[in-house]
Amino acid sequence: MTQSETPSTLPWQLSERARKLTSSAIREILKITERPEVISFAGGLPAPATFPVEPMRAAAERILREDAAAALQYSATEGYLPLREWIAQRYSTNGARIRPSQVLITTGSQQALDLLGKVLICPGSPVLVETPTYLGALQSFSMFEPRYVQVPTDDDGLIASALTPELTAAARLLYTQPNFQNPTGRRLPLARREALAELAQHAAFPIVEDDPYGALDYAGEPLPTMLSLAPEHIVHLGSFSKVLAPGLRIGYIIAPEALQFKLVQAKQATDLHTPSFTQRIVHEVIKDGFLETHVPTIRALYRDQCAAMLAALERHMPEGVSWNRPQGGMFIWASLPAGMDSMALLEEAIAHNVAFVPGGPFYASEAQASTLRLSFVTVPPAKIDEGIARLAALIRARL
Amino acid sequence: MTQSETPSTLPWQLSERARKLTSSAIREILKITERPEVISFAGGLPAPATFPVEPMRAAAERILREDAAAALQYSATEGYLPLREWIAQRYSTNGARIRPSQVLITTGSQQALDLLGKVLICPGSPVLVETPTYLGALQSFSMFEPRYVQVPTDDDGLIASALTPELTAAARLLYTQPNFQNPTGRRLPLARREALAELAQHAAFPIVEDDPYGALDYAGEPLPTMLSLAPEHIVHLGSFSKVLAPGLRIGYIIAPEALQFKLVQAKQATDLHTPSFTQRIVHEVIKDGFLETHVPTIRALYRDQCAAMLAALERHMPEGVSWNRPQGGMFIWASLPAGMDSMALLEEAIAHNVAFVPGGPFYASEAQASTLRLSFVTVPPAKIDEGIARLAALIRARL
Repeated sequence: MTQSETPSTLPWQLSERARKLTSSAIREILKITERPEVISFAGGLPAPATFPVEPMRAAAERILREDAAAALQYSATEGYLPLREWIAQRYSTNGARIRPSQVLITTGSQQALDLLGKVLICPGSPVLVETPTYLGALQSFSMFEPRYVQVPTDDDGLIASALTPELTAAARLLYTQPNFQNPTGRRLPLARREALAELAQHAAFPIVEDDPYGALDYAGEPLPTMLSLAPEHIVHLGSFSKVLAPGLRIGYIIAPEALQFKLVQAKQATDLHTPSFTQRIVHEVIKDGFLETHVPTIRALYRDQCAAMLAALERHMPEGVSWNRPQGGMFIWASLPAGMDSMALLEEAIAHNVAFVPGGPFYASEAQASTLRLSFVTVPPAKIDEGIARLAALIRARL
Repeated sequence: MTQSETPSTLPWQLSERARKLTSSAIREILKITERPEVISFAGGLPAPATFPVEPMRAAAERILREDAAAALQYSATEGYLPLREWIAQRYSTNGARIRPSQVLITTGSQQALDLLGKVLICPGSPVLVETPTYLGALQSFSMFEPRYVQVPTDDDGLIASALTPELTAAARLLYTQPNFQNPTGRRLPLARREALAELAQHAAFPIVEDDPYGALDYAGEPLPTMLSLAPEHIVHLGSFSKVLAPGLRIGYIIAPEALQFKLVQAKQATDLHTPSFTQRIVHEVIKDGFLETHVPTIRALYRDQCAAMLAALERHMPEGVSWNRPQGGMFIWASLPAGMDSMALLEEAIAHNVAFVPGGPFYASEAQASTLRLSFVTVPPAKIDEGIARLAALIRARL
């Protein structure tokens, strides 16, 4: 939208929530960094080389040949039953069976956040989030005007023992990404998952386990989901965006039926249902075990790119810059030397054709201005090295 | 959802809006009437025989061959630019050019209602609706807890002269379906469109012209949209659900850029963007004039089915039952003899394997219990006659 930067004034009154709305800082940055000469570590986009184009082409062809009337018609708000059954089966363990009635298909995982906001949040409701947390969740929940309560974290993610009765009083939900969190890449250890699953069984609010990156652990040794530890008490969000393709917008919520009942009503009012055709494509592609061979190729690619970035950081960064070593996912979290502001650095970086995302927007409040998020998944290793070298030079010049 | 009828109680507190939520009466009825022995006039579903399966298959194949990386990747919240350009061109007239920057692609027209509710409605805001109005709009807007104000109507739809300053005071929007309204099938005459377009240019609230059925006028002689009469002051909603296929969930909002700016921010928080792949399929199918030959075949089918139902009503219904003669769309609106309740009739009708939708749920308040909606688009003429005969016998028995 060319006109979107300076919209003329409207004669119409907007809602309170609309007046508070701002664009995602990341999206505005991404627009700038789309120039081909920019080495961008800003993107959260999966590598297109991993998209299974041929299986999708075959699936689309078969669906339109054998099942077109249903694939192109209005369909159930809950989602395509065979896909819901597949997901329920996938999440069932020896200890706990997940029922298809616990699964709701959403238009991407982002819609799951919108529906949870609709069903759980009143203006002023306390909502517990990590420090920092996923920016998209802040955007979705903010439409329902909560009061954010930040839960302390360390290099292992959310500090479960910090969830005291005082901190969680009157909370409507706790939102967490336990696997390779966006933006920090951190993974929550088993003991903390167990503590949260235990809490979930007694808490007066749901724990929302958002897990878009869980399949991307480089060693292929996933930790148990909190859902598997407390299958009747956790709200689990999943997505096919990172293991198949995001452009299909297929995500899902696994939740107790009593909450699902309300989420379905909210979804009906929101978009009636997720497209029938794309749900069927996903099911057709994955139903015979495709992910078992496909996901390891994504993991291997991202593991190598992550290693390349870690090596480049080691090689080029001056003392005072620190970063973590993720065991999976798409992001590295870094801190600049004390007093250095990542937003100011970004302006200079873009002038030198390298980009990243400043950490500030990921904090519900009290942002750490020295932090930044680096994504390595869409940049080839040689370019990673060049981009990190450029960034290091700019940091060095500021020291 | 088997468990959805009697969900167990939750230990979690729900939002105020969630506690007020109810399922669509129509969807609950549709579930009952899916039995093949039921002659159902309850559906609002387009006839699957009209879905252009082969052009869609060819489009999907070409897109995944030539443009897969973009079609399967995250994309702009505003929508696929060539599709937005096509829509802008389609709505441009000699008098008024519509700009692509005025067009936002939505996940079905239902999402347009959700986004408008988010951006315009505060709890208690007056929202003007027709008497009766589209049930899906009531569901979407109700998530934002407005106070509905019903605008009087007659057989020609909304009575424009009833929009006095008293009635419209503090309104946040006026919602209307001027073409073959769901549920009444009524079409707003030109003079009233002109009066509303005039009002739109001075009103302190937007007039939302929802137009899913405009292309389905049987004579192929559409009246001007209000958008064409006041292109900078009307919010126009369109959809490909009735002219291509609803299962793709592709709709759009045409609005002044200053409102679009806020709608885009709201959509970003809601589902990031509508699936890239299905947007491209729609564009690929329609870009070379497909609708010019396709839409007339849908019109002809629905015109014949409508005529068959009108003839059956004439043949079988007892005195005291009245109905209108729509010039387009998918619905006939009928009234039972004074004092007869359509909801009570429905229960008996279902026992006799015939179904319709009672009119009550389409009223924001003060429902007319004797009204009902009859859809003719998915029932073959012989079955239409049989179903109407059954219904007439039940009404006669109650007289």
